[in-house]
Amino acid sequence: MKALVYHGPGQRAWEDVPDPTIQAPTDAIVRIDSSTICGTDLHILKGDVPEVEPGTILGHEAVGTVVEIGSAMTTLEPGDRVLVSCITSCGRCRFCKEGRYGLCTGGGGWTLGHLIDGLQAEYARVPFADTSVYRVPDELGDEQVLFLADILPTAYEVGVLNGGVEPGDTVTVVGAGPIGLAAIMTAQLHSPGRIVAIDLDSSRLEKALEFGANVAINNGREDPVAKVMELTGGLGADVAIEAVGVPETFELCTDLIRPGGRVANVGVHGHPATLHLEKLWIRDVMITTGLVDTTTSPKLLKLIETGRLDPTPFATHRFALADAEQAYDVFGAAAESGALKVVLEATPVGHELLEQHEVPVTA
Amino acid sequence: MKALVYHGPGQRAWEDVPDPTIQAPTDAIVRIDSSTICGTDLHILKGDVPEVEPGTILGHEAVGTVVEIGSAMTTLEPGDRVLVSCITSCGRCRFCKEGRYGLCTGGGGWTLGHLIDGLQAEYARVPFADTSVYRVPDELGDEQVLFLADILPTAYEVGVLNGGVEPGDTVTVVGAGPIGLAAIMTAQLHSPGRIVAIDLDSSRLEKALEFGANVAINNGREDPVAKVMELTGGLGADVAIEAVGVPETFELCTDLIRPGGRVANVGVHGHPATLHLEKLWIRDVMITTGLVDTTTSPKLLKLIETGRLDPTPFATHRFALADAEQAYDVFGAAAESGALKVVLEATPVGHELLEQHEVPVTA
Amino acid sequence: MKALVYHGPGQRAWEDVPDPTIQAPTDAIVRIDSSTICGTDLHILKGDVPEVEPGTILGHEAVGTVVEIGSAMTTLEPGDRVLVSCITSCGRCRFCKEGRYGLCTGGGGWTLGHLIDGLQAEYARVPFADTSVYRVPDELGDEQVLFLADILPTAYEVGVLNGGVEPGDTVTVVGAGPIGLAAIMTAQLHSPGRIVAIDLDSSRLEKALEFGANVAINNGREDPVAKVMELTGGLGADVAIEAVGVPETFELCTDLIRPGGRVANVGVHGHPATLHLEKLWIRDVMITTGLVDTTTSPKLLKLIETGRLDPTPFATHRFALADAEQAYDVFGAAAESGALKVVLEATPVGHELLEQHEVPVTA
Amino acid sequence: MKALVYHGPGQRAWEDVPDPTIQAPTDAIVRIDSSTICGTDLHILKGDVPEVEPGTILGHEAVGTVVEIGSAMTTLEPGDRVLVSCITSCGRCRFCKEGRYGLCTGGGGWTLGHLIDGLQAEYARVPFADTSVYRVPDELGDEQVLFLADILPTAYEVGVLNGGVEPGDTVTVVGAGPIGLAAIMTAQLHSPGRIVAIDLDSSRLEKALEFGANVAINNGREDPVAKVMELTGGLGADVAIEAVGVPETFELCTDLIRPGGRVANVGVHGHPATLHLEKLWIRDVMITTGLVDTTTSPKLLKLIETGRLDPTPFATHRFALADAEQAYDVFGAAAESGALKVVLEATPVGHELLEQHEVPVTA
Repeated sequence: MKALVYHGPGQRAWEDVPDPTIQAPTDAIVRIDSSTICGTDLHILKGDVPEVEPGTILGHEAVGTVVEIGSAMTTLEPGDRVLVSCITSCGRCRFCKEGRYGLCTGGGGWTLGHLIDGLQAEYARVPFADTSVYRVPDELGDEQVLFLADILPTAYEVGVLNGGVEPGDTVTVVGAGPIGLAAIMTAQLHSPGRIVAIDLDSSRLEKALEFGANVAINNGREDPVAKVMELTGGLGADVAIEAVGVPETFELCTDLIRPGGRVANVGVHGHPATLHLEKLWIRDVMITTGLVDTTTSPKLLKLIETGRLDPTPFATHRFALADAEQAYDVFGAAAESGALKVVLEATPVGHELLEQHEVPVTA
Repeated sequence: MKALVYHGPGQRAWEDVPDPTIQAPTDAIVRIDSSTICGTDLHILKGDVPEVEPGTILGHEAVGTVVEIGSAMTTLEPGDRVLVSCITSCGRCRFCKEGRYGLCTGGGGWTLGHLIDGLQAEYARVPFADTSVYRVPDELGDEQVLFLADILPTAYEVGVLNGGVEPGDTVTVVGAGPIGLAAIMTAQLHSPGRIVAIDLDSSRLEKALEFGANVAINNGREDPVAKVMELTGGLGADVAIEAVGVPETFELCTDLIRPGGRVANVGVHGHPATLHLEKLWIRDVMITTGLVDTTTSPKLLKLIETGRLDPTPFATHRFALADAEQAYDVFGAAAESGALKVVLEATPVGHELLEQHEVPVTA
Repeated sequence: MKALVYHGPGQRAWEDVPDPTIQAPTDAIVRIDSSTICGTDLHILKGDVPEVEPGTILGHEAVGTVVEIGSAMTTLEPGDRVLVSCITSCGRCRFCKEGRYGLCTGGGGWTLGHLIDGLQAEYARVPFADTSVYRVPDELGDEQVLFLADILPTAYEVGVLNGGVEPGDTVTVVGAGPIGLAAIMTAQLHSPGRIVAIDLDSSRLEKALEFGANVAINNGREDPVAKVMELTGGLGADVAIEAVGVPETFELCTDLIRPGGRVANVGVHGHPATLHLEKLWIRDVMITTGLVDTTTSPKLLKLIETGRLDPTPFATHRFALADAEQAYDVFGAAAESGALKVVLEATPVGHELLEQHEVPVTA
Repeated sequence: MKALVYHGPGQRAWEDVPDPTIQAPTDAIVRIDSSTICGTDLHILKGDVPEVEPGTILGHEAVGTVVEIGSAMTTLEPGDRVLVSCITSCGRCRFCKEGRYGLCTGGGGWTLGHLIDGLQAEYARVPFADTSVYRVPDELGDEQVLFLADILPTAYEVGVLNGGVEPGDTVTVVGAGPIGLAAIMTAQLHSPGRIVAIDLDSSRLEKALEFGANVAINNGREDPVAKVMELTGGLGADVAIEAVGVPETFELCTDLIRPGGRVANVGVHGHPATLHLEKLWIRDVMITTGLVDTTTSPKLLKLIETGRLDPTPFATHRFALADAEQAYDVFGAAAESGALKVVLEATPVGHELLEQHEVPVTA
């Protein structure tokens, strides 16, 4: 089969590789119907994730069709359409039993496109398939559910749920890239009073307003803390969701939070931050970090099914899976291309927009 | 002043009474700007609430303006516009400290229009005003907040929150009268996947769909349990909210709930129900009862302020306060009049619809 | 091998049966080292559980040693000592993923000694072994952990945790049989202020005091509601745990609970109860039912390991496994024998007390 | 009357001052029967709390007797014995209504001995007395409840409850001074599997073991992270409670916590700490800070009343109130005196140990 293979920093190729095979009785082989690219994939290509060995197939987000199952599998049959998420769950370790699949110590967690071959391929081996994939209802198209593979549950679980968003809350989302937009989208499931987006880029802030933010603050032009205090009668935000991953934005979150508020870190950090305990010790704040578990995927699927959640606006570009390299270029140049998420399609037959794959879908 | 006085079963009059006066340093005197009538007021008039003594002014829901404050009051000034709810809170007893104002043992709880004079009057004495009333933001009109005095927090706290409604849930609301409609309206704050309304009356079910229900079941015409099972793949509803107050509807809730589901009773019951423990003991169900506390009023106010909640569709009829008796007739004949909530207005000057007060507002 | 086989109401025999074999790749074969008898086993023998077919091996509680594993098993090896609980978990269905193993829809739940062969045998097949059994630390003896197979997690999860026992609470336990005693023992993990045991039998009440109850009420001699009100300043109990399974005791729980309190039903009921909603609707009560999930078994194991929990006082009698029929007689005549739990031992070699197996261990 | 007055850094005197008087209808005047000294009082004396103005009476912990009440008070009478805590609650602001009295914006919070005159005096004015003090049951002596005025609820709420201690948990307490010991004492209410105390001082660690810690680590002599990892099979502690207030100990807490664990900061910090988000972002940790609210005081009182909690071991020294200056010297030299808490007694008549007030009570 063909797959997108990582060959060391800066090097990748859509090339021939051996077909995946069942290696454990709990494995499934899945034909990839749609995949997408994550910011983390770009980090891997830069060499920032050294545990990814050259020769690894990239990708950890897909919708596909089961083609073969291991002897121990009981919940899926060949032909079933499934969502394959970034996280697999052994289902047996203490953390999986507690619903913390991201912390799996039994061989799951984030392994696809990381420690084992991933999903930007024609076929993939999915370990622990019974406990890791989600059936896709027939009436839903791939693009409706594809972003449940990572970005939506990440923003929802690690941002919105960890942040304890409640009806009426003032929620600030610092960073209006795809993950921040996903936090803005899913925070609305809990009816905050007001969502405030903060970013340095005006076009991202426009997107934030489109996705449901009520207030946009360009922190290159105005003081975000002063503005949030003004909006909240001097109190501060109830919830601050960090969706960038640098010390400054984390510290901004702790600056604009109200006494008794919650800071939920979603960003992937490479450096330590300063925690101003000399101010915070008395302010009753809660700070959380986390990796997605995908435990909310069934809930989010139901909301998509009943029309209460629509992730399709994330799909700004579509490519044939075989054009994955080109898709990486467009996604990697998001500032120019405006890409949020690019869809890689295995069988683009009949897809009228495919020819225009460099044109944003929403243009 | 004038007020609507209860004179024993079936008897009431809009008549002259002495002006209320400050009796404790924590009292406030409030000029009533808008009031409304509750189903409970009808029960009182029927004689079903024997602890209400003849001579008591009726009513426990109002928006008004503070005109005088007791010497211990610190948070309000004459001139402040306030929401006066059915529940007052002494703020000092164990239950008030736990946010269970409805269980207040310090002289609060439901007393207005019940154990002490109520709010269907030109002026009213409000005990424990500092801990019991809510400031109304200037930009909100009386009708936008009036139904926070009882029906909305009752449905939200005792129905939606006790029922633990979560995103994606199938929520059934049994009874589509005003309180059931308020449960349907406020359940949406938690993004259920699907709201199912059940009632014997088709016109109520139409209202339910208008207020946000997704499915309406007339249980006089079809089997509601079979229908809910069909909708949920044979599992049952995640949450069932009882909003009638008779044994049959409570038992229906326990019949249509899924294993692990929650039954939240909101209805006021006069008779015991049968609890089928021989079936339920193994099904992991949770059943709750409760009186409203109004602890969520500040949240609900914020949601109205930010435009995320709009209770005004409950206002089907408007009357001058002095026409309270006529308003009772229209509200009491809801089956014919279609009344949900009737608004009693102290100063209807400039209100173009007032002349047509027998015509439904939404007609 | 030999096993205790059910042959229809009133009939059972310790007899030769075929050895169990691996039937699914997730099965394990376990040699039974210790087993015990549950009140439910007596019900089966009376014919009260008609879904148990004649020919079924009885028993759903054991400590044993893995002797063979299926091809998909990853967490256990032959030679591992394990606790086998009443509940198995497929680990894959929605309920297992939510930690509600008792509601498993994937083939688990309560099946051992019920729908499939059980554990009062020399060997047993345990389905879904990776997700259903718990490793026993070397330093713990069989009797220290055996009662984690059912009675302790049942009382703890369905009684204490569902009842939300908090430090300082007044907890009433209605019924001081083995399950009530287990509730009394495990409630202490949450530091209630006072545990009140209620029963008709004085010797059971003495046991209750030994197990940690602070107050014993014989409801054949004094009014338990009046007594609880007296103890609580007229308020009622914070938590009531029903551990009998008849309508009267359930209704007693709802009578003695305080406003805002919680009733946790643990008893297995054969008949409906009356729920006095005409009194309870306004009292903010929560009522729960449930089947054990055994999700707390790892916690309880840790507490036994660190010496903070000691279930051995439940072991009143010991028998050789081959004497299981005699053990049933003693356990079935608990009123005379004083039996709480009887231990069935496969290899009683060196057990100095075995000769005296009809004498209570604690005598 | 006489009181201990702060006269600027390093200066204090037991001297004549005017008697306190009722200033608001919600005030009470309390005769101080017993008081104690807090580490914070020492900080004030060093000049570290500049908002304390010279002339202020020190102290924020007392048991006393009501001698006069304001006109709005309803729950107390002259003659009532009460616990006066470090925190007062206006009972009316948003934070008080949420039970976050420490964040009170209505004039309460920590004011006694800070922004207004305190409790190391013969009499004191206590604002918001109805909502701020707790009745002391007759059968309890002053010393049994005195430490509920600050140290016990602080350790319990900000350490144990914020840290979410659950049965079976491994809880590390970093810092074995009085507040750390109070965390060790109150953590036991939630039945952790193991409490690990970490400190640089061996005599403090011995105290920790006396107060209920199971393991003591001297982090001057051995690597506390390595040791905790060894104890927990390489996983880390479930809960880490910071009870010192310097960056190093906070960072130690984040180093020894397991994935999915909770760090509860109790220490008062003067400097920022480094938060290693580059390691923590993926580890699902929760970090909390907070000021005590004293909402748990009624629970803790009940536990003392029923004999399940005994704070008296904190009382190492007793002095007459008039000897407060000497008491400060002993408490300030805790390293030499071994003082944990010193009791200041207004009427030491009949107290046989008083003569020996420089000798530790427990010596």
